[in-house]
Amino acid sequence: MTSTGKWTDGVEGVLLDITGVLYESGPSEAIQGSLEAVKRLKEAGLPVRFCTNETTCTRQVLVDRLKGFGFDIKPEEVFPPIPAMCQVLKERNLRPHLLIHPNASADFSDVTTENPNCVVLGDAIHEFSYANLNKAFQILVSLNNPILFSLGKGRYYKDEGNLVLDVGSFCRALEYACDIEAEVVGKPSATFFNTAVKNMGLNAEKVVMVGDDIVSDVGGALASGMRGVLVRTGKYRSTDEDHPTVKPSAIVNNLSEAVDILIKSRKPNWDGLAELA
Amino acid sequence: MTSTGKWTDGVEGVLLDITGVLYESGPSEAIQGSLEAVKRLKEAGLPVRFCTNETTCTRQVLVDRLKGFGFDIKPEEVFPPIPAMCQVLKERNLRPHLLIHPNASADFSDVTTENPNCVVLGDAIHEFSYANLNKAFQILVSLNNPILFSLGKGRYYKDEGNLVLDVGSFCRALEYACDIEAEVVGKPSATFFNTAVKNMGLNAEKVVMVGDDIVSDVGGALASGMRGVLVRTGKYRSTDEDHPTVKPSAIVNNLSEAVDILIKSRKPNWDGLAELA
Repeated sequence: MTSTGKWTDGVEGVLLDITGVLYESGPSEAIQGSLEAVKRLKEAGLPVRFCTNETTCTRQVLVDRLKGFGFDIKPEEVFPPIPAMCQVLKERNLRPHLLIHPNASADFSDVTTENPNCVVLGDAIHEFSYANLNKAFQILVSLNNPILFSLGKGRYYKDEGNLVLDVGSFCRALEYACDIEAEVVGKPSATFFNTAVKNMGLNAEKVVMVGDDIVSDVGGALASGMRGVLVRTGKYRSTDEDHPTVKPSAIVNNLSEAVDILIKSRKPNWDGLAELA
Repeated sequence: MTSTGKWTDGVEGVLLDITGVLYESGPSEAIQGSLEAVKRLKEAGLPVRFCTNETTCTRQVLVDRLKGFGFDIKPEEVFPPIPAMCQVLKERNLRPHLLIHPNASADFSDVTTENPNCVVLGDAIHEFSYANLNKAFQILVSLNNPILFSLGKGRYYKDEGNLVLDVGSFCRALEYACDIEAEVVGKPSATFFNTAVKNMGLNAEKVVMVGDDIVSDVGGALASGMRGVLVRTGKYRSTDEDHPTVKPSAIVNNLSEAVDILIKSRKPNWDGLAELA
């Protein structure tokens, strides 16, 4: 544990990343202690929201998966990029060409995709084929004002024990090809984080984000005015601890340890309240 | 013709891009006038070298293809990236993992690829699959000092009438994923251009490069101290004429027009010589 404990001062709400913090993907299993950790946060009266860049399934499937592990989580507590993306498309009257995972397409069912005037990239996994990347490129390059959205900008993540390329890396290929900059919907966008923060009725400085991605989770949280705690689970690599620009508020072994420290730090207040009573 | 003609002053040698300047790829055919243009350059006593980022076939296949169109070209006049890459690998004792087009692999036959300590990207076309990109990424991320080479850094090119992603775009994906910068072997690397320039026994300021890629050909040539002429064939797009940073020495309709202007600009000297005789 690298922190001095001060990262807990004044924390009134918690944002949690899902994959790599609550459970490991492929082989899919809850991370030891994470089930109890979420329960303890809720029992301590701390509001919790789940801020994920998961785009390989619908929100409902994700919630069902978490419930399957035993997590007590409601759909409205989970903030994935696709609902936020659909809102942006609607507001700006945009018709996307979707390069996304087929399992997530149901969450775009209300969106018009004919005669596209922008491209949306999710974590398409095997759909990131040479043909599909070229198709997305050709649509962008045919537009007078090419608009590219990326659902997150992660570099890589861990799947079945291997690190694999994430949507951000494929986004870079299209950005370079078209000489444009993508708009990110998802972490580390401050706009995206703030939706979840506001949903708790809090300001960013009262919130801590716990994640396994040094850049998207921790860096994004810090840039958005929150605390950012890095866990040594999921995609974590030891080199993350020496990141040249992102200095986490704390580095902990796992979510359970972060919650231990946070709950303990709140104890004196309760004792104080008890004395006052 | 945009130029004032001054780009021809003092030119003593010519570098030509191949695809998009000598011939159009898919459907593969010589560009009108290019056959005669090369012949006229040689007849005028101007040394000519062919500087290409072609990595989808061996140098011999490329030369045979050009001969098939009727071009009078010797293998030693053609400078593709792979021989230069093999030289670098040898000098630095590197063993590459190759993500290249299968048709080019013969030109790497002398290179040890077991237990790789670097990655080489060529224009792998359909081999740029999700699986192969991940494999290259996993090798890089496993190295203490990840080294990535890219044979050129083109954004896109024209194939069968469609613009398709070039090696530079896929390189960007891996650069971002690994947080590294690739070393470019091929255009627009000045080291690469200079090999061909020196082979003519000239200095860069006496040489003009003619190409259809505003960045790799024209921008690269200008940055290397040469003149850079853009042709309106191949991957050329009208927006290239307003490129924010690269200002070509001249823009011509095709190679034939460039050679017309160059040969005519030399006429007065010959007349002068004739008068002196």
